[in-house]
Amino acid sequence: MKPLAVSMGDPAGIGLELAARVWAERKGAPDFFLVGDADAFARACARLTLPKPKLNIVANAGDVRIEAETLCVLDTPLAMAETPGEPDPVNADATIAAIARGVAAVRDSAASALVTLPIAKSVLHTADFGFPGHTEFIAHLTANDAWAQTRGPVMMLGGATLKVALATIHAPLADVPRLLTRERIAHTGRVLHEALRRDFGIAHPRIALCGLNPHAGEDGHIGREEIVTINPAAAQLRAEGIDISDARSADALFHEQARNGYDAVLALYHDQGLIPIKTLHFWDGVNVTLGLPIIRTSPDHGTGFDIAGQGKARADSFRAALAMARTMTERRAAE
Amino acid sequence: MKPLAVSMGDPAGIGLELAARVWAERKGAPDFFLVGDADAFARACARLTLPKPKLNIVANAGDVRIEAETLCVLDTPLAMAETPGEPDPVNADATIAAIARGVAAVRDSAASALVTLPIAKSVLHTADFGFPGHTEFIAHLTANDAWAQTRGPVMMLGGATLKVALATIHAPLADVPRLLTRERIAHTGRVLHEALRRDFGIAHPRIALCGLNPHAGEDGHIGREEIVTINPAAAQLRAEGIDISDARSADALFHEQARNGYDAVLALYHDQGLIPIKTLHFWDGVNVTLGLPIIRTSPDHGTGFDIAGQGKARADSFRAALAMARTMTERRAAE
Repeated sequence: MKPLAVSMGDPAGIGLELAARVWAERKGAPDFFLVGDADAFARACARLTLPKPKLNIVANAGDVRIEAETLCVLDTPLAMAETPGEPDPVNADATIAAIARGVAAVRDSAASALVTLPIAKSVLHTADFGFPGHTEFIAHLTANDAWAQTRGPVMMLGGATLKVALATIHAPLADVPRLLTRERIAHTGRVLHEALRRDFGIAHPRIALCGLNPHAGEDGHIGREEIVTINPAAAQLRAEGIDISDARSADALFHEQARNGYDAVLALYHDQGLIPIKTLHFWDGVNVTLGLPIIRTSPDHGTGFDIAGQGKARADSFRAALAMARTMTERRAAE
Repeated sequence: MKPLAVSMGDPAGIGLELAARVWAERKGAPDFFLVGDADAFARACARLTLPKPKLNIVANAGDVRIEAETLCVLDTPLAMAETPGEPDPVNADATIAAIARGVAAVRDSAASALVTLPIAKSVLHTADFGFPGHTEFIAHLTANDAWAQTRGPVMMLGGATLKVALATIHAPLADVPRLLTRERIAHTGRVLHEALRRDFGIAHPRIALCGLNPHAGEDGHIGREEIVTINPAAAQLRAEGIDISDARSADALFHEQARNGYDAVLALYHDQGLIPIKTLHFWDGVNVTLGLPIIRTSPDHGTGFDIAGQGKARADSFRAALAMARTMTERRAAE
């Protein structure tokens, strides 16, 4: 099994220090190499007062080697040394390049999956990064690759007790009702169903579908999207053999007993899915991109500019992202 | 301190059996009397195989007496004996009357507060009940009563670790952005602030305000309501001396560490507030109406028609609603 590629994220954020911490305590972590700036990684280690790391800096993914005491770095140099907590657009190109080289490493079979450390979209927008986030960028980079199943990207958040996939992601709330077509919901359900089987080893996945309106519209008394769009999408999926509920009252879906009744939730918009995940799994949630030819996971948090460089950042989510990427690659390889 | 009035709710739901269970195990519960059908209450006891209750059936709230072994019932007869799980519009008038008589009992100082058992709006709509729910009906019934502070109703959900007030309640999601005016948010914030001081004894309440869009709009990249409406409302409240944040990313507001940073959350729509409350407090959450001349609480669940009459319903939330009503009345009395 090839190692995981880890892209450095915004060098002024907490990403490199998470990588430094996990590398320092790497016992039990899956094999990985870093796609980023080797000197910036060394500086992150120094800020955490960790020993100076042994690095094997390579220029091509084909030269990556996994060794017990030496971290391999696919070098992607910054334009200027980072200042923790002060993101600088001058390093946007390197941040973007690290993602692109990580994707390329997986496509070229030098890595088995990509784990991305956090980026700040507001910084990248200044570099004409025309994507809402990693998810869409990685979908773009792999758009022409062969993929026999339903093509994503679908964003899923996963913790030990809950998985939630999103039908819309970073849309303004006012746009959500219009974006939620029957086909969009059905498509998200298909990608989720296939991924639960293929990447998570659930033979007969049970999906709970959220309503859009309070109490899932209460039979049309509080909005009609459930009747017109959402339940018909569910019916279509059931006709295809997918085990998905009709629209359910989203507020009653996430307590412990309810969670025993399904394998994953299909939520219709960002906060509907992320509020419960982050309430339950704030520190160890993982962001997963479903339905793409490459496997990509990420810690479910941002760049943490306010605490960057101070050694305060918790690595739980990054560790969980590495572990989930490894499990998913093993499952896909076993197919 | 006068007793609490408890309105029976839909007689085909779980309300009467919750009242029966709590009455049977009443040790430690605050004093209460029932506003409802005495025979239906006796039938609920029988279904739970509880001893036949001693009842003191009175026609007027002024005749209510609290005794250790006898439950006082302010009689509000059903038109027809209930069938658990099969709501019948024939009993809608009695269900509505029980609420109205409970409100009247508090206004006439025969009760100190009202605790309402669940109703089914779809059943009441057939009886021309022109209100989305208890909250609005009770506001209507008390609209002309003196009230020196900011007038609600504002719906708040409370559990031991979280309180959330809502700026909009049972609106279709598509209507929410339009409904969220600056004045509506500011008004909700005022009612919440005053209630936290008056009814919950928090001298300097700290309120966390949710954004509407993903990541609270990310500086306008994902929707502009935060900039145009929500943050200006917060600024206005702060100018009035209220400690409220600007719009915060709602998904990051509800984990344990975040909850230590505020006393209550002001959420902008139903699922944004109810998803975290019900994820954390599904069994023991309480629905509270803020900003009215009378205090009203309620269990935070529905009529449970699917389990009514089977003895399965958990009374945790009703017990919590009784306890919260008692605490609030004591605080108001001490003012």
